[in-house]
Amino acid sequence: MPPSASPPPFNIPTGGQTLALLPVLAEAIDRVQREFEQALRSDLPPVQRLVEHLENYRGKMLRPALVILSGLAATPPLAESSTSPSHITIAAAIEMIHMATLVHDDVLDEADIRRKGATVNRLRGNEAAVILGDYLFSSAFRLCSSLNSQAAALLIGQTGMTLCAGELLQLHHRENFSIDEPTYFEIVRRKTGSLIAVACRLGAMQSGPGRGDGVGAVGASTDDIPARMERVGMDLGVAFQIQDDLLDLTGNQSVVGKPLRRDLELGKLTLPVIHHLATATPEQRGRTLALLDTPHTEPGTSAAVSRALLEALETTRSIQHARDEAARLVARAKANLAALPETPARELLMVMADQVVTRTS
Amino acid sequence: MPPSASPPPFNIPTGGQTLALLPVLAEAIDRVQREFEQALRSDLPPVQRLVEHLENYRGKMLRPALVILSGLAATPPLAESSTSPSHITIAAAIEMIHMATLVHDDVLDEADIRRKGATVNRLRGNEAAVILGDYLFSSAFRLCSSLNSQAAALLIGQTGMTLCAGELLQLHHRENFSIDEPTYFEIVRRKTGSLIAVACRLGAMQSGPGRGDGVGAVGASTDDIPARMERVGMDLGVAFQIQDDLLDLTGNQSVVGKPLRRDLELGKLTLPVIHHLATATPEQRGRTLALLDTPHTEPGTSAAVSRALLEALETTRSIQHARDEAARLVARAKANLAALPETPARELLMVMADQVVTRTS
Repeated sequence: MPPSASPPPFNIPTGGQTLALLPVLAEAIDRVQREFEQALRSDLPPVQRLVEHLENYRGKMLRPALVILSGLAATPPLAESSTSPSHITIAAAIEMIHMATLVHDDVLDEADIRRKGATVNRLRGNEAAVILGDYLFSSAFRLCSSLNSQAAALLIGQTGMTLCAGELLQLHHRENFSIDEPTYFEIVRRKTGSLIAVACRLGAMQSGPGRGDGVGAVGASTDDIPARMERVGMDLGVAFQIQDDLLDLTGNQSVVGKPLRRDLELGKLTLPVIHHLATATPEQRGRTLALLDTPHTEPGTSAAVSRALLEALETTRSIQHARDEAARLVARAKANLAALPETPARELLMVMADQVVTRTS
Repeated sequence: MPPSASPPPFNIPTGGQTLALLPVLAEAIDRVQREFEQALRSDLPPVQRLVEHLENYRGKMLRPALVILSGLAATPPLAESSTSPSHITIAAAIEMIHMATLVHDDVLDEADIRRKGATVNRLRGNEAAVILGDYLFSSAFRLCSSLNSQAAALLIGQTGMTLCAGELLQLHHRENFSIDEPTYFEIVRRKTGSLIAVACRLGAMQSGPGRGDGVGAVGASTDDIPARMERVGMDLGVAFQIQDDLLDLTGNQSVVGKPLRRDLELGKLTLPVIHHLATATPEQRGRTLALLDTPHTEPGTSAAVSRALLEALETTRSIQHARDEAARLVARAKANLAALPETPARELLMVMADQVVTRTS
C-alpha cells in the first residue's frame, strides 16, 4: 500500500479475518479514486478547476467499497482473489453517478455546505453546478461503455433512470403531510436503494465464472449470487436512508457535517415524521404540523423547535419505529449474506451492514 | 406512411431524386419518436406527466435526420437501402441528450418560453427540470447500451462530456467582452458541433460493411466515410450555431419562437458582437458596450436598443462577417459531401446544409 493510500472508508473494528482484507480494500479504493480523477480530467483549465473542487465532495466511498467487496465475496473459493479492472471501472462510474446526484441535489436544495465544505453551487453558481453534474453523468456512462460487456452500462443507465424517477416522486410528494409509509419506501428504494443495489449486483457479476453475464459466480446452479447481492444492497440502501433521516433529527450537526432538519425544512418528510403524523392523536398531529411550519432558521428558535419536535415524536415512539425498520432491513441483509460462502469479504460486508445503522455521520 | 406520420422535419424544396426519399425519412423519424417515447415511459404518473410535457420541446429533429441520412448516404450502392434498428436507437439517444441540455439550459437561463410553449422549469419548477434532464441523460445512455456494439455508447458518453465542457467554457467567459473568435469557435465546436458531428459519424458507422466498428462503409479502403461525415456534422453544427446567433439579433421573434437578444442579455457573446467589439474603433466599442449594458426588458427600450445595436454592428459589417463564416462552413461541408457516392441521401444532406443558414427559426 503506497504511503499516499487513503484510510479505509469506514471504521472497522479490525480483528480476525477481516484484518487481512483491509489493505486490499484500501488499495482498490485508491485505484477507484485514480480512475475517477483520470476519467474526469479536462484539457480546459476552467473545467479542470471545477472537477478538482469535487475532491471536497468525496465521502465514505460506500458504493465503491460495496462493488469491491461484493466482487470478492462472489469469487469462487479456489480462484485468485483479485479485484479486476472492470470492478474498478464500475466502482468509479457508480461513485460518479452518486456524486452527480449530490451536486444537483445541492442546487435544488440551495445547500451551502456539503461534507463540511462549500458546495459547487455556492462557490461557482447554479449554472456551473448543473453542468458539472451533467459532466459527471456523461463521464460515468463513458466509463461503463469502456467495459467488455454492455451488461453493466445497461444496468447503470437503467438505475440512473430509476433514481431520477424516485427523486421526481419525492418532489411530487413534497409538503404532502399525509404521505404513507409504502410511498416513502417506494421513493427511497428508487432514489437511494437502487444505486447501492446495483453496486452490489455488478460487483458480484464481474467475479468468477460467468463474469459479466449476470449468471451467478459461486454455485451458479443453486444460487444466483448477483441477485442475492442486489437484495442485500437494496436493504442496506434503504436502511442507510432511514439512518440519514434519523441523523437529520437526532444527529450532532458538527459530526453530520450539514445543517440538521434540512430535509423537513425542504418539505421532504422523513420516516419518523411520517410514522408520527400517521399514528398521533388528531390534537397532537395538529401541534406537530404547526411545529413543522415554524421557520427553523431564526436564531434561538432552532433548538427549541428541535426539542419540541423530538418530544412530539416520542409520544408515538416514532424515532424507535424508524430505528426498528432500519434494524429489520440490516438483519435481512445479514441473513442474505450468511448464505454466501464464508470469506473475509463476507465478514467485512457484515460489519459494514451493522455500521449503516450505527454510524453518526 | 401511416396517417399519423410527422411532416418532414424541415422544408425541402422537393423535386428530383430527393422526393422519393422523403417518405422514407419521415417514417424513420416517426420510428425515432416512438422509440424516444417508449424509452422514457414511466410507471409513476407524476414522472410520466413530466415526460409528456417534453412533447412541447420537440423541434426540428435535426440530429435524428442526420443520423438517418448519414446512414443512407454511407450504405454501399448495391445494399438494400434500409434504416436499421440501431440507427433508430442512436437517433433517439442523441435527440434525448440534446433535449436534456435544452431542459437544463432553460433552468440556467431562467427561460420561460421554448419553441413557443412554456418551459418545464416555468411550469413545474427548477427542481423538476433538473431531475428531468438527468432522467433524459440516463435514458439516452441506457438506449445506447442496448446496442450490439459499445462503440456508439462510448462515443456518445464522450460527446456528453465534450458538450458539457463547452458549456462550462462558455460560462467561464460569460460577460467577457474581450473574448476572441478562436475561443468562440472552441466553445461552439464543443457545445453545439460535437453532438451533431457524432450524429453524422454514428449514422455512417452503422451502415454497410464494417457496421459499428468505425471503419468506413463505402469504399472503406480509400475513404473513411464516418470520419468524413463527422467533419460534415461539425461544420454544419458550428454554422447552425452562428445562424442561431444571427437570428438572436436579426430574427423575427414570433418566427424564432423565443425572446430575441436573450443570449446577449445572459452575457453570452455571439459571433457578430465578438467580431464587432474586436474591430470597432475605441469610441464605437465604448458606445456598444454601454448599449449591451442597457436592460432589454424595460418596455419601449427594447426596439430602440435593438435598432441601435444593429446600426453599431453595421459599422464593422459584423452581421455580414458572421454570415460569411457560416457560409464558408456550409460550403466546406458540401464539398465533403460531394466526395460521397451520388445518392438521394447525399442530395438531401446538401439541401439540409443550405437550410442551416437560410432558416428563419
